[in-house]
Amino acid sequence: MHDLPRHLDGYGELRAYAPATSDRRKRNKLLPSLDAALDAAGLKDGATLSFHHHLRNGDGVLNAVLDAAARRGLRDLHIAATSIFPVHAPLVRHIREGTVGRLSASFIAGPVGEAVSRGLLAEPAVLCTHGGRARALDQGQLVVDAAFVAAPAADELGNVSGRLGRAACGTLGYPLCDVEVAKCVIAVTDTLLPFPVAPIDIPQDRVDHVVDVESIGDPTGIASGTTRPTEDAIGLEIGQRAASAIAASGLMVDGFSFQTGAGGISLAAGAAVGRSMGERSVKGNFVAGGITGFHVEMLNAGLFRTLMDVQCFDQAAIRSYQTDPRHQQMSAAVYAGPHVGGAVVDRVDAVVLGAAEVDLAFNVNVTTRSDGLIIGGSGGHEDAAAGAALTVVTTRLTAAGFPKIVSKVRTLTTPGDSVDVVVTDGGIAVNPARAELAERLCHAKLPVVSIEELAAKAADAASRRSPPRSQHRVVAVSEYRDGTVTDVVRAMKEV
Amino acid sequence: MHDLPRHLDGYGELRAYAPATSDRRKRNKLLPSLDAALDAAGLKDGATLSFHHHLRNGDGVLNAVLDAAARRGLRDLHIAATSIFPVHAPLVRHIREGTVGRLSASFIAGPVGEAVSRGLLAEPAVLCTHGGRARALDQGQLVVDAAFVAAPAADELGNVSGRLGRAACGTLGYPLCDVEVAKCVIAVTDTLLPFPVAPIDIPQDRVDHVVDVESIGDPTGIASGTTRPTEDAIGLEIGQRAASAIAASGLMVDGFSFQTGAGGISLAAGAAVGRSMGERSVKGNFVAGGITGFHVEMLNAGLFRTLMDVQCFDQAAIRSYQTDPRHQQMSAAVYAGPHVGGAVVDRVDAVVLGAAEVDLAFNVNVTTRSDGLIIGGSGGHEDAAAGAALTVVTTRLTAAGFPKIVSKVRTLTTPGDSVDVVVTDGGIAVNPARAELAERLCHAKLPVVSIEELAAKAADAASRRSPPRSQHRVVAVSEYRDGTVTDVVRAMKEV
Repeated sequence: MHDLPRHLDGYGELRAYAPATSDRRKRNKLLPSLDAALDAAGLKDGATLSFHHHLRNGDGVLNAVLDAAARRGLRDLHIAATSIFPVHAPLVRHIREGTVGRLSASFIAGPVGEAVSRGLLAEPAVLCTHGGRARALDQGQLVVDAAFVAAPAADELGNVSGRLGRAACGTLGYPLCDVEVAKCVIAVTDTLLPFPVAPIDIPQDRVDHVVDVESIGDPTGIASGTTRPTEDAIGLEIGQRAASAIAASGLMVDGFSFQTGAGGISLAAGAAVGRSMGERSVKGNFVAGGITGFHVEMLNAGLFRTLMDVQCFDQAAIRSYQTDPRHQQMSAAVYAGPHVGGAVVDRVDAVVLGAAEVDLAFNVNVTTRSDGLIIGGSGGHEDAAAGAALTVVTTRLTAAGFPKIVSKVRTLTTPGDSVDVVVTDGGIAVNPARAELAERLCHAKLPVVSIEELAAKAADAASRRSPPRSQHRVVAVSEYRDGTVTDVVRAMKEV
Repeated sequence: MHDLPRHLDGYGELRAYAPATSDRRKRNKLLPSLDAALDAAGLKDGATLSFHHHLRNGDGVLNAVLDAAARRGLRDLHIAATSIFPVHAPLVRHIREGTVGRLSASFIAGPVGEAVSRGLLAEPAVLCTHGGRARALDQGQLVVDAAFVAAPAADELGNVSGRLGRAACGTLGYPLCDVEVAKCVIAVTDTLLPFPVAPIDIPQDRVDHVVDVESIGDPTGIASGTTRPTEDAIGLEIGQRAASAIAASGLMVDGFSFQTGAGGISLAAGAAVGRSMGERSVKGNFVAGGITGFHVEMLNAGLFRTLMDVQCFDQAAIRSYQTDPRHQQMSAAVYAGPHVGGAVVDRVDAVVLGAAEVDLAFNVNVTTRSDGLIIGGSGGHEDAAAGAALTVVTTRLTAAGFPKIVSKVRTLTTPGDSVDVVVTDGGIAVNPARAELAERLCHAKLPVVSIEELAAKAADAASRRSPPRSQHRVVAVSEYRDGTVTDVVRAMKEV
């Protein structure tokens, strides 16, 4: 080397290059076990572990990691999951035994929801939204010590593909946010492929360690719940009415963008919207959200130009993402973040969402059953409602004998100011704040009634009365996407 | 809303949800001009502005932004570019007039290189490597106030595509690092498309503002320099020898990975490697780096499974990236970062690189001409040399009458400890640290000679002697990928 000056004005001190003495054997990020990964992440009692739910009710990673954590005697862990499904029932035991002390998620269903409702956790669970969770990660409010990525395929430097492997799940929109900020990222795969994986969904510089396990879960569990339009007559009628309301709104023009939940009525509404678009020769821009084969059919029928997919809901969607570049992955932040200066939900013209209950202020409950049992949570419900130009909530008047249009929702998940229309088998109620929309719907001869009328009809049709709201201890806090609180959930019994 | 507790143990204070009063008109990120973007970014004197070179010698964005900055009277800006080309000649004026006070880049060629060599900048320019620049960004050493993305296509929420638009450039591997950390990201496009762009190469949550301009540059400038194998007899011979050395190394087996520069001799070596792979029925894993149509042909011939592309070097590569999912974008960090726990360069088996000079310690100069004029810089040279299992440097013995194998390089760009073989028209020198490799090459009957013999041959063949190294003021610092310094460049004349 030439002699170097020690210091240069405008540059500072110069540190001279020194040859590395390391050998040139290829490094890799492989660890032999989840145990080794917990070691490598340096996890201590009270640490926050994050998980995502692209394998939905087939996920095997959360349970395997917590089993390993329990064997090591870790205590009081905070589980920051995107969603908890019935398959995660072993989490109840880990809470009971003290391995897990805190829980946050956008959606909690099954035995864990029941256990939380009964007061199993000493500290309230936090129910966030998909967009709110991404915001909390990006803004440093949710600090993750170790993010676990259920990787359908990975290579030894940490490139992850959702499109390959025996448990291919398609897009990986949720962990895309976690891997940006977690202190340690661990890809757990059962399909280790030669470097580099192709196509890559999460790049290697976002992943610290790779663990090759026997199985990351059961891919048949991905398509849990309905992912096809309902064939039930009442459901079909509600779906048709929702589509008619959207058509009457004036939004269904070229460039139209659309989102539905994956429930049977929402998809029936989607089918009716598709027919209506076809009749009017409307060419839409995109469908957003969780994507099913039904949405893929809309893309392939030429109704929409592209799909913006945070999570594939079934195998047909996965196959589409594997092969069709019009079918695009988006992160939870891009999908629904309230902090990104405009998310995809903010560009949705019309969204069709479900409800467990709707009240006279158009507030929606998708968090608890009529008896207060936790059966879900917002997921993207609040985000989509807040973003869309037209938010349509569909519901039957009653379910299991309980009224679904009520004076006050048991748990306020999605605030009524972001809900425009409630479509039921008893008629359509328009939020009074949207007088012009009500006029359009009346002009289209749709059965517009007041929300009070719907509530009266629901009360008439109901055979049971919802029990009074619990006054017991708070077991969960329902956060809005901005981190404020829409409601709390109280224990079903004294605990 | 239900009454909420003000505080919960294990949660803290509860802030109650309050309805937003904002209207629901769609926000967008469009700004009417670069001037408005400079305003929005809040740029002040001394700010750091970053740029990338995917449009290479056709780039129009850097010049347009600096013209706008000059009109506003901004002073002493730091231009942190990935590469500077002849098209950026107006930067000389902006330096002279004080608009620009500092310059850092991985590669500086053309009038700006000449101006820096003559001492135009008061502070030394910083020449980094592609991987080192990504590291400096990620580690907070290079703090960017505004990153400008030359966006071949974009939508009004900031999704950027390199695959669409009149100046489609293919992958966008360099700005992928800048947009992660810059305080403000401005996408400059001449092809504003309906939301959402498809396919997306940089997602909307990484972009703050979008400016729609008349032109982002001249796409015919992308394929600047050679992007085809040389047809010159000496060049072909050197290329064949390089390929033979790689074949003899034992690395050319199934799973082989390869990188070449885009120069004529490097691509001739690539062609010969391809022929050799075909003869041996070797199926490689990937080609990495900047990608040309030549590399695409290797992919399509079945020689490799995938391309890892940080930058498309010609239209054939761009077309391939537009349509072939095996052709993958990678960020500069993934490509070459020394800080990511294993970059793509670390997985390259053999790389063929060029040289302006090589010395007896196998050090390589790709920064200055024999007379000290700055003509480039590392780009990915040091990164690839450090990462590859076998680093082959090809060069003629002389160029323009000057010897290219010298006792000591004029400017040390790539340290000799990462260079294994030097292939010339006068024979092949193997780094003495690689005795086993020398044996393999001798066994394959390749013309192995000592580096001293090559230097002697070069001196004999040369018609001119390199002038002595300047003792004038330091005008540039050549940084290794880890931020240490390999050398300084001094002004060609007293300044």
